[in-house]
Amino acid sequence: MYKILDNIKNPEDIKKLTLEDLTILSEDVRTFLLENVSKTGGHLGSNLGIVELTLSLLKTFDFKNDKIVFDVGHQCYPYKLLTGRKEEFQNLRQYGGMSGFPKRSESPYDFFDTGHSSNSISAALGMARARDLKKENHEVIAVIGDGALTGGEAFEALNDLGFHKTKMLVVLNDNGMAISRNVGGMSNYLTHIRINPKYNQIRKKIKSKLSKKESNIFTSAIRKVKDSFKELFLNSMFFDDLGLRYIGPIDGHNLKELNRVMKQVSKLEEPVVLHVVTEKGKGYPFAEQNPNLYHGVGKFDLKTGILKSDKMTYSSAFGTSLVELAKHDKKIVAITAAMASGTGLEEFANKFPDRFFDVGIAEGHAVTFAAGLAASRLKPVFAVYSTFLQRGIDQIIHDVCMQELPVVFAIDRAGLVGNDGETHQGVFDISYLSMIPNMTVLAPKCPEEIGAFLTYAFFLSKPVAIRYPRGGANYPFKPLKELRMNRWEVLEKGEDIVFLAVGNMCGVAYQIKEKLNIKPMIIQATFVKPLDIKLLKQLGEKNKKIVTLEDGTLIGGFGSEVRRTMNELGFTNPIIHIGYEDHFVTHGNPDVLYKCEQVDVDGIIAKIKPFLGSE
Amino acid sequence: MYKILDNIKNPEDIKKLTLEDLTILSEDVRTFLLENVSKTGGHLGSNLGIVELTLSLLKTFDFKNDKIVFDVGHQCYPYKLLTGRKEEFQNLRQYGGMSGFPKRSESPYDFFDTGHSSNSISAALGMARARDLKKENHEVIAVIGDGALTGGEAFEALNDLGFHKTKMLVVLNDNGMAISRNVGGMSNYLTHIRINPKYNQIRKKIKSKLSKKESNIFTSAIRKVKDSFKELFLNSMFFDDLGLRYIGPIDGHNLKELNRVMKQVSKLEEPVVLHVVTEKGKGYPFAEQNPNLYHGVGKFDLKTGILKSDKMTYSSAFGTSLVELAKHDKKIVAITAAMASGTGLEEFANKFPDRFFDVGIAEGHAVTFAAGLAASRLKPVFAVYSTFLQRGIDQIIHDVCMQELPVVFAIDRAGLVGNDGETHQGVFDISYLSMIPNMTVLAPKCPEEIGAFLTYAFFLSKPVAIRYPRGGANYPFKPLKELRMNRWEVLEKGEDIVFLAVGNMCGVAYQIKEKLNIKPMIIQATFVKPLDIKLLKQLGEKNKKIVTLEDGTLIGGFGSEVRRTMNELGFTNPIIHIGYEDHFVTHGNPDVLYKCEQVDVDGIIAKIKPFLGSE
Repeated sequence: MYKILDNIKNPEDIKKLTLEDLTILSEDVRTFLLENVSKTGGHLGSNLGIVELTLSLLKTFDFKNDKIVFDVGHQCYPYKLLTGRKEEFQNLRQYGGMSGFPKRSESPYDFFDTGHSSNSISAALGMARARDLKKENHEVIAVIGDGALTGGEAFEALNDLGFHKTKMLVVLNDNGMAISRNVGGMSNYLTHIRINPKYNQIRKKIKSKLSKKESNIFTSAIRKVKDSFKELFLNSMFFDDLGLRYIGPIDGHNLKELNRVMKQVSKLEEPVVLHVVTEKGKGYPFAEQNPNLYHGVGKFDLKTGILKSDKMTYSSAFGTSLVELAKHDKKIVAITAAMASGTGLEEFANKFPDRFFDVGIAEGHAVTFAAGLAASRLKPVFAVYSTFLQRGIDQIIHDVCMQELPVVFAIDRAGLVGNDGETHQGVFDISYLSMIPNMTVLAPKCPEEIGAFLTYAFFLSKPVAIRYPRGGANYPFKPLKELRMNRWEVLEKGEDIVFLAVGNMCGVAYQIKEKLNIKPMIIQATFVKPLDIKLLKQLGEKNKKIVTLEDGTLIGGFGSEVRRTMNELGFTNPIIHIGYEDHFVTHGNPDVLYKCEQVDVDGIIAKIKPFLGSE
Repeated sequence: MYKILDNIKNPEDIKKLTLEDLTILSEDVRTFLLENVSKTGGHLGSNLGIVELTLSLLKTFDFKNDKIVFDVGHQCYPYKLLTGRKEEFQNLRQYGGMSGFPKRSESPYDFFDTGHSSNSISAALGMARARDLKKENHEVIAVIGDGALTGGEAFEALNDLGFHKTKMLVVLNDNGMAISRNVGGMSNYLTHIRINPKYNQIRKKIKSKLSKKESNIFTSAIRKVKDSFKELFLNSMFFDDLGLRYIGPIDGHNLKELNRVMKQVSKLEEPVVLHVVTEKGKGYPFAEQNPNLYHGVGKFDLKTGILKSDKMTYSSAFGTSLVELAKHDKKIVAITAAMASGTGLEEFANKFPDRFFDVGIAEGHAVTFAAGLAASRLKPVFAVYSTFLQRGIDQIIHDVCMQELPVVFAIDRAGLVGNDGETHQGVFDISYLSMIPNMTVLAPKCPEEIGAFLTYAFFLSKPVAIRYPRGGANYPFKPLKELRMNRWEVLEKGEDIVFLAVGNMCGVAYQIKEKLNIKPMIIQATFVKPLDIKLLKQLGEKNKKIVTLEDGTLIGGFGSEVRRTMNELGFTNPIIHIGYEDHFVTHGNPDVLYKCEQVDVDGIIAKIKPFLGSE
């Protein structure tokens, strides 16, 4: 099938390849990725963009000894493919199959599990310092995109690295994109370097020198006077100022250039930032033209590039509702941390460009920035994935809730997200938000409700989080028109047992009702916090059997707080808690995962048997 | 008493002062601060260093319209003193008295509450963008130290600011210090600017120009060609690269220079970083010579500079124990985020400089960096205050616990810290750590136990957090020699009721026992997580009345998890939970605060009356 790829059994095989072979291999890898990802879904654009860079890293370094950390990690497909995991691609991101991110448990070639952004330099620096302490001898490499570079942790690590001059290579994979177009002063600066006419002159210069004498001139220049190496390239005062040696920019799709520079760089005994310019989606015209759309995809038609469209999602309903509200209230402003499309904010961004702020991958800043806007009497909404908001917990506590500033958190991807797996599951937000004083946490049961929940949040004028899952409704609900302050909604007045359900778990409660043909009371816990004390008292007085249901971890979760509160109120109702046990939830189709976690209809029925038997 | 200070009733009065008067006022302010802080305790060095800068800001700007955000905020004393809060200094940081940090609830001159580091530019940027949207007209200023600049959020905000070119002033108050000497490539870079001989030449140049023609030349230079303004100063490519206008460095103790530059800067319609060089502790020789020691102080003797020494603390016991263990295990390494002294790591740093890493104020990086070290089979300990670890929660989840890497978190200042108040109380760590899979949470009951707990943590070789409070023991305990895996310790075998206590609450349990003259069972919950299921079952079977006691918030806390687990085990024991209710805890003496929160002996006795009555 694949001329070269089929013969690559392990990374050693790549070292023997000629430049010509490598070029063919790069085509093989692209073809393989397109054929496979179009069938399984997965991250596409970033992987197409990093093919040559990966080949060059594998050609130059020896990852039996050397170590590499991929920032975010969704660009690791070519690396996985070439480190003995070709067969696993058919089960990519499926339950029990290969993860879409680096996993130490998966291969000795993976050195650090990633998924979130901007932490690769920190992790790699730990490995480099450990190497030096143990007097070992190997390379440590962090591969980080320009998007991830906007995250503060990357700067914290560069600052540390440049101060102590630890030998380490930071490969800056610069494609000018986060998921959508990258933002920030740093991004402008990198663009400025890239479009500098000197860049092309330099490239020619290097090529001519290299071709002349097998790079001898080049090598000796480095050995004798390191600075002359830099003179061949543009200066980057930014990185130099931090104490790092900057080299670049080089063309990330030119294997010859990559290989030669990479080899030279590997000889430097200091921290180096190697600036490599790549194109996201390279080699697949649809993805090149629309890198945002092809960043992460479901299955798609390879020839037409047609992606399957989704039904109405919580994200799109949020976006539409916010636009409607913003039309009538000029104080409403929206913030994203490089996730405008994923969170449904694109229409808002187009309609109200002045009131839309993409701050880059920088959740901590986003939260405090929202607090600043709120302190000036605007009505900020920060739309963010549950898992990424973990980066801003201190800011929620310290900058928003302590001052009780009216910031609305629109928390998307709350609950299981599925194929992205454990780094992306949104299972902690109920716990980490509930512990924070002055915070109100809400959960709609279907996309159509989001407008009413947003309206309430703005009306309340305090810190409010609205959490909702990936995808759309799981039951044909009639949406609530409005919220009653701190009061839950009794959806079904049945008598048998009480399902006290958060968000999409209301739909599951109905499915259980139908499957068992029982008449439970079903309550939508519209307010995850504060609890509806009045209703809890009624349930307590009647000594109802309660099942709490939430798409989140049990420790510190909604059910836990219901139990504690009932206890404080003096009631000892029998309660069964449905949610995730104390472990990380792996990747796979959400339906499969719900089943494994016993948070699906059958699993819950099995768990609540003690309640059913005695009815 | 004070020649000028006594006549300052509000900031307007400062605008009328001559340079001579301002100089006298700066002396008044220093004398006032020294006299007051020596009596009350508080932050000293940073406030002595910022006197002239504060005067200049108040002289130049009008904070009836303009807004200012102090990063961290412990340097706000001169500002508080000069914005109508002179009388409040006698109750500084006392319960019901003035906070040691900016507080919007305290004065219309405070615009944003701070306490944690590196968030001021984000908050100020929110205010600046709100101003522009609302078409208002006022200045927004962030005052940030070079130490706080190592925090990634500051970079995230600068990156955003430089990209969108929002008009705003960032005053970089550069004293070369965090609490101890500042670290990082950025710090080196600022030092490089400061010691550049050009700096002094430039200062002379400005002075001569300014004295000649009442700064006319200077002003016109700015108005005509903005860049010529910059030429008078050094270039900072770092800030320029991010899209910011850098101006500096200027002498932060020279009022004349400060006032003139400040006035010019206020006319620029773009984001400006004004680099001001100050000396921490300025004007008090003891503090100048030892800024670390005089950063935050208790009461001290003004003439001799003698600080009262503490009894044995958890911090010092931790430091001593870690040094002992590290002598016999070369793999042990220690990390601090600019808190070597506060966390007790100074001896370790001196004895094992190669194995000690101060990463600057950068908790997120510190956690991932530790994960990197652990992935390379070292044994890292990150010593950090409970409240500051909130900045690294995502990294604990994502980089440490998901991979189950053996990082030890030595969590100091867990529980109430007292006078620093709500921004610094360490009341959330049990909740945010308990929710994370693969995490073990431990709590010693006295400083002498820390060695045994650390030994266990290294033995376990998994993620472990050891939490302990500020100060020392609250009861004369005989320390445990070792921990039994996942087993609690029955300290008293009494029969009446069960006190299930975390850490220092064991001492409180003993005090209650003695005061009431009862015979309770007292159990030390050495393991906050995981719970001792075997012992819980025994308590459940005997239907014991249980009182859980913890120095932390109740929501998602230890007691909550005990209640949920008992429920899962099928027991309905009566349980009373002692801890903090769902609100932020203010500043004040810890004993007063414990009383207010009903977490002192009398408060707890009142709460557990239902249990006592029926005995």
